[in-house]
Amino acid sequence: MSNTNSSESVRITGFKVQDIRFPTSEAQHGSDAMNSSPDYSCAYVTLETNQPGLRGTGLAFTIGRGNEICCAALHAIAHHVTNRTLASITDDFAAFSRSITADDQIRWLGPEKGVVHLAAAAIINAVWDLHAKDCGMPLWRLLASMSPDEIVNCIDFSYITDALTPEEALHMLQTMEPGKKEREQILVENGFPAYTTSVGWLGYTDEQVVQLCEDAISAGWNHMKMKVGRSLEDDMRRAALIRESIGSDRLLMMDANQIWGIDEAIEQMSHLAAFNPFWIEEPTSPDDILGYGRIADAVRPIRVAAGEHCHNRIIFKQLMQLGAIDICQIDACRVAGVNENLAILLLARKFDIPVCPHAGGVGLCEQVQHLSMFDFIAVGGSMENRMIEYVEHLHEHFIDPVRIERGRYIAPSMPGFSIEMKAETLLAYEFPGGPVWHRRVS
Amino acid sequence: MSNTNSSESVRITGFKVQDIRFPTSEAQHGSDAMNSSPDYSCAYVTLETNQPGLRGTGLAFTIGRGNEICCAALHAIAHHVTNRTLASITDDFAAFSRSITADDQIRWLGPEKGVVHLAAAAIINAVWDLHAKDCGMPLWRLLASMSPDEIVNCIDFSYITDALTPEEALHMLQTMEPGKKEREQILVENGFPAYTTSVGWLGYTDEQVVQLCEDAISAGWNHMKMKVGRSLEDDMRRAALIRESIGSDRLLMMDANQIWGIDEAIEQMSHLAAFNPFWIEEPTSPDDILGYGRIADAVRPIRVAAGEHCHNRIIFKQLMQLGAIDICQIDACRVAGVNENLAILLLARKFDIPVCPHAGGVGLCEQVQHLSMFDFIAVGGSMENRMIEYVEHLHEHFIDPVRIERGRYIAPSMPGFSIEMKAETLLAYEFPGGPVWHRRVS
Repeated sequence: MSNTNSSESVRITGFKVQDIRFPTSEAQHGSDAMNSSPDYSCAYVTLETNQPGLRGTGLAFTIGRGNEICCAALHAIAHHVTNRTLASITDDFAAFSRSITADDQIRWLGPEKGVVHLAAAAIINAVWDLHAKDCGMPLWRLLASMSPDEIVNCIDFSYITDALTPEEALHMLQTMEPGKKEREQILVENGFPAYTTSVGWLGYTDEQVVQLCEDAISAGWNHMKMKVGRSLEDDMRRAALIRESIGSDRLLMMDANQIWGIDEAIEQMSHLAAFNPFWIEEPTSPDDILGYGRIADAVRPIRVAAGEHCHNRIIFKQLMQLGAIDICQIDACRVAGVNENLAILLLARKFDIPVCPHAGGVGLCEQVQHLSMFDFIAVGGSMENRMIEYVEHLHEHFIDPVRIERGRYIAPSMPGFSIEMKAETLLAYEFPGGPVWHRRVS
Repeated sequence: MSNTNSSESVRITGFKVQDIRFPTSEAQHGSDAMNSSPDYSCAYVTLETNQPGLRGTGLAFTIGRGNEICCAALHAIAHHVTNRTLASITDDFAAFSRSITADDQIRWLGPEKGVVHLAAAAIINAVWDLHAKDCGMPLWRLLASMSPDEIVNCIDFSYITDALTPEEALHMLQTMEPGKKEREQILVENGFPAYTTSVGWLGYTDEQVVQLCEDAISAGWNHMKMKVGRSLEDDMRRAALIRESIGSDRLLMMDANQIWGIDEAIEQMSHLAAFNPFWIEEPTSPDDILGYGRIADAVRPIRVAAGEHCHNRIIFKQLMQLGAIDICQIDACRVAGVNENLAILLLARKFDIPVCPHAGGVGLCEQVQHLSMFDFIAVGGSMENRMIEYVEHLHEHFIDPVRIERGRYIAPSMPGFSIEMKAETLLAYEFPGGPVWHRRVS
């Protein structure tokens, strides 16, 4: 028995779902070309156990209306986790993941996409949170302590073996075993690189944007992202302002949030190229693999980035097979949680594509940092061209919020997956009955 | 004002959602390699109006558990349709469709996929049912009576203009205007070709399958489909039995329901080719566009068919651009209803791919017949290699059930989209409170 085995005695005895929403649209935080007025929200799940004080939490991030549909989906798949021992899940984690994603009636609703897949992510991540707490380790360290075999046993390889077999995955992980301790040391001492999206939401004024750039530079940020796509004229003016503020050496990323068609994306980027963007993110529909391929060919040397809306490993696989993305933006809870993200990290390694997670929202920064840190220690093995997105809102609601120092994420030390929210937040922001909403809705 | 304009005075005043389920798993109807025990179900929506007796109905088809999630999604998007006049919708039908699929908060949950998109289909189809009833025509005839401009104005072209522009769509429809009356006459006199899936569900015994083949031939069927994918040995034995029963001239289709990986699909079909299948349907994940391309290249001259789980026009577009499907299997309520299916019919015409709709389930036969009949009259213009799937269950629950004669669909004549269920069915099969379920659940 390794130290990553769950205690046989932990049993999941309770399952609680809460609809939590924050009225972020009131200050235009999070506004972009596609999503004009998001109220950052989550369907929040708590797995209670037979051990006093030991529980796992997970969430599906949404931007407001429809959060209740995710709550309904959580209830619909709850039977896959309740009354099970934690060990019965972690002993065959791929089978557990597949029991949810291939449920013989619910699968029809996707498969492996949309609301049900968001709910699967929340539950699977809650189990990992519970497992890490039970092992007394932050998730990144738990993953890094697992053997190559144990990692491979977490992954559902269905529909990806044409790109990555279990044997290849095992071999890649084995080659990274030497140096893991050294990389862990580097991570703990130096943190992990990040970039900030908090300077360039579309709803902000020019003055706000310039001030935020100056503040960010003072705080030690070297990489910034702006939103584009509402109008070329606005984008050009804002890009010029930001580039002037941050200078030519700092990286500037652009994010179109799927607003363009393919030819339009190519045309728009021919103008925005003047501001030397490091990447263009989500230039078109996340479903358009061939379209991404055409855009990537046309806009080089500008990189193409995607992932926050890529709904499963099969989409990531194809984008990589076609050379259609240069940056892989995993999301903590769009795909089926840690397990499916392990598959995607390994695919990215196979295709030599840097992983720069999508974050922001509610608790996404808290979660993805663990995945990037594990990626550095045991899969990708590098911080070159790797950055985790950072958005500064809503961290105060978490028990173990991210810590940023001079533009880098500091490795978390508290056991778990850093997803757990404060009790007072869960009371105040529950929709529609909590006091924050009660006075708005009534 | 053409005769296809809605009455200005019709207003949608009520919105009702019902969770309707049929215990089909008890007799193994609908069993296949992926879906072993479906309880055919639907989230059923009724739009009440200010006109006595005039209402529109639509449904999202599911196979049991999770149907309640679709019901929750219907409630979440109801505000896009309630209290609107019918004319305000039909005057700019593309804008209406887009108001649902691009809702600025709910879009995040997809976009344009999964549970929310199923709910969008149900509501959009319910509006078409209402519109056709208001015009006093079956839907196929209403669509056929619309001008090329009116059809194009129903379509959201976002993310498909690289394959099909509004101008191209208009031109294709205009070239089909001559001959519409003649083709309508042919349709009314001869019906539309069909094939039956009722002979080969995986849960049936060999004896059942042989008997069902003999019965089907007696009833005039010339095209049959069998399920494959649980084991090659079983598939070979069953294929030999069916081929022996139906002879070498009748068409035999095979359906793997996504059970295989890419290399596995190619390998399995190398054996099953001996039985001369007309097509292999859903050999792998519906998300794997590049995988479909590889399979299609490898299994020719066997055709590759897909569509029932292709979640939107963007996926269909790519499958066609890549030459990855030879048969386009539209589904009435997987994509966003009639409007998105109009886009897909036009894409199929552009790429010269026959449309053979997916049907079965609950009311899918009733709905898709209208789309194929419109396709014949005004888009594709041919019945060659076109067939509508037919499954014989559950038609008795509909007010205007399909009529089959000698293996062909007879054109419906009752106004509407043929989706409306009988009042006694809605009472008996409501889940979990209706009498059919009450005695099973309690």
